[in-house]
Amino acid sequence: MKTEIISIGDEILIGQTVNTNATWMGQELAKIGIKNNRTTTISDSYEEITESLKLAESRSNLILITGGLGPTKDDITKKVLCDYFDSKLVLNEEVLSDIQAYFKTRNKPFLEINNMQALLPEKATILRNLVGTASGMWFERNGKVFVSMPGVPYEMKYLMKEGVFPKIKEQFGISELVHRTVLTHGIGESFLADIIEDWENKLRENGLDMAYLPSPGLVKLRVTSTAGNKKLVDEFCDKLYQLIPQYIFGEGKITLQETVANLLIKNKKTLSLAESCTGGYASHLFTKISGSSRFYEGSIVCYSYDIKEKELNVPHDLLLQKGAVSKEIVEILSDEIRKKYRTDYSISISGIAGPSGGTPDKPVGSVWVSVRNEKTVVSKLFNFGNNRERNISQSALAAINLLRELIIKENE
Amino acid sequence: MKTEIISIGDEILIGQTVNTNATWMGQELAKIGIKNNRTTTISDSYEEITESLKLAESRSNLILITGGLGPTKDDITKKVLCDYFDSKLVLNEEVLSDIQAYFKTRNKPFLEINNMQALLPEKATILRNLVGTASGMWFERNGKVFVSMPGVPYEMKYLMKEGVFPKIKEQFGISELVHRTVLTHGIGESFLADIIEDWENKLRENGLDMAYLPSPGLVKLRVTSTAGNKKLVDEFCDKLYQLIPQYIFGEGKITLQETVANLLIKNKKTLSLAESCTGGYASHLFTKISGSSRFYEGSIVCYSYDIKEKELNVPHDLLLQKGAVSKEIVEILSDEIRKKYRTDYSISISGIAGPSGGTPDKPVGSVWVSVRNEKTVVSKLFNFGNNRERNISQSALAAINLLRELIIKENE
Repeated sequence: MKTEIISIGDEILIGQTVNTNATWMGQELAKIGIKNNRTTTISDSYEEITESLKLAESRSNLILITGGLGPTKDDITKKVLCDYFDSKLVLNEEVLSDIQAYFKTRNKPFLEINNMQALLPEKATILRNLVGTASGMWFERNGKVFVSMPGVPYEMKYLMKEGVFPKIKEQFGISELVHRTVLTHGIGESFLADIIEDWENKLRENGLDMAYLPSPGLVKLRVTSTAGNKKLVDEFCDKLYQLIPQYIFGEGKITLQETVANLLIKNKKTLSLAESCTGGYASHLFTKISGSSRFYEGSIVCYSYDIKEKELNVPHDLLLQKGAVSKEIVEILSDEIRKKYRTDYSISISGIAGPSGGTPDKPVGSVWVSVRNEKTVVSKLFNFGNNRERNISQSALAAINLLRELIIKENE
Repeated sequence: MKTEIISIGDEILIGQTVNTNATWMGQELAKIGIKNNRTTTISDSYEEITESLKLAESRSNLILITGGLGPTKDDITKKVLCDYFDSKLVLNEEVLSDIQAYFKTRNKPFLEINNMQALLPEKATILRNLVGTASGMWFERNGKVFVSMPGVPYEMKYLMKEGVFPKIKEQFGISELVHRTVLTHGIGESFLADIIEDWENKLRENGLDMAYLPSPGLVKLRVTSTAGNKKLVDEFCDKLYQLIPQYIFGEGKITLQETVANLLIKNKKTLSLAESCTGGYASHLFTKISGSSRFYEGSIVCYSYDIKEKELNVPHDLLLQKGAVSKEIVEILSDEIRKKYRTDYSISISGIAGPSGGTPDKPVGSVWVSVRNEKTVVSKLFNFGNNRERNISQSALAAINLLRELIIKENE
């Protein structure tokens, strides 16, 4: 089975929009065991679209098309499809009432031009779009499937999930895949691959697939059974918890800060932070979680020496003697903020974010992190290299992970 | 002139990597007046690459190829190109010494496999890559140009800037374009287009081009003369400062927070923040600027009522009476943080980030912002709708812009 994607739109070609639709579709197709063989991005032109449909039909079984379906005159995909499949436009009453309802519930004026969106090719199976006005269109010819969808990402995703994937599975006889994604923090992809090499080999011998999905600060391990063998997937994933327990923080789509938020809420504990080099970023990671007021009290961003001394009682002489990036100073910061803001747990972070400010014994990227509750303090030195933005984000994640380990230990 | 991009790599097709290379190339081509007509993403396979080269040659004059040039066995683009152009590989001594120097300066061991990277097609003009090991290759046949580059973004960008663009301009006789990009904040694209409609029409009548480039919270206006008429571009851009002075914060690539940072540094002033709903994000925007310690002292993230009362002296009764999202409270917060942290300027932000917590008179998205120095306080109510992350980022930018206006006014 050969699959390809055709993305229509000048805004992608000239770089005003990143083609994240193709990325998402490639990922979702891979999850059901279909490899995307080609992505073509073309202009919103009659000739270009027609030519691309011909080429795609000559080599692929499944052709997914996005873009060019709005009500304005520039959007001509529907016209091309009608001609290509020798089909005329007919009024679809169901779609018309969907569109009218769409405008009504959003209190938007209904313009005549929107009636056009209910005129659809007779030969297409219509996929209803309840989050926008452009329907999905499913064409079949000689066992080959063409699906046309709008280019607005959330409309495309809605149609793929609700209409396209179920029909693809049925049409091409695709059995349900089983996935589990285990999330790790604090270890690079190549080191991880080294540790779990035997496990990975056995997994493949047993007919499972796996992928390393790295993202900043994290590596996700996705284990897949194309045969739908959930028991085997569980068996291998469970083994990971024995092999690399210290690196796993969760499964699925959760973030590191969300796991910590959940632990704090579950144990009815509160949190405060004293941030120096991360300058508010770690607090932002927590406060962007909806409902963060259930555990998060507040932070001090103690960027200057003056704020460290006057607001968090760091002794002036010690600061000069040890430097702000030291075990002694982060331990004072985590202690003082916890007491001052009366929280159960606290985090402090102090480092040299760069690009300047490094010294031979404290190079750029050196970061001291401290986490504590009333009884226990844990502090650790990291180095994340010389990129300022990367340093800030990695330092925040490392601190959050250290807190995660402490909470788990203290609440076992 | 027809141009297309061929991106090679399974990692893009299956969505593990977003094709940002094509986005960047499309943007940069547009800047010199070349429209990208097509982007094709294909597998790292001999047949796919050969077929795509043939199709591209049949319809385009300039074909830019990225990916598939590493030293491992998977990367076969170089072999395909040799066969396609009937060329043999020869050792390029200059590239060999570049590669050896590359490993030496990075203290990395030089592996034999890397010698392969200095074997290059005889018929190609070699574009030296001093930031990696895979050279660029420039082929010409019947006036058509093929350029092959590695897929690593910074290597591709290096080669495009240093080698490819200068040669493209020469080969295709492209005159230097003149651009100026004016940056605005605080007004949506359609409202902006409405205000400057006459100006835009006149600009086009005078043979200039312009593009609206929206990004979160900002709209960039890029004015271009393909005829290289700098005087005319300047004339129109300067007129914008009379038409929409209140919305323009800078030009080129500067961010809103960087313009404020520059103003503070120039006027030798310092800043502190009291953040509630933005939870540290506004502080992060400032502290991610390298050298922010020159003006930024620190912040309090006063998320809970308790921190607002105990650390920033907000009267308990007033807080209950007016609510945390009110003019009275943000003005106390900006006053208290400025005095407590002894800074010249301060920002405070308090709002309902959502998705819950709204009331009929204070719906989700309501945000009060206050900025001040010793003499003046300016406070303003905004509403940014019901998306939490968008609310946080828009609130921070709105507050930073309000501060920008105050600093300019106070230091005129």
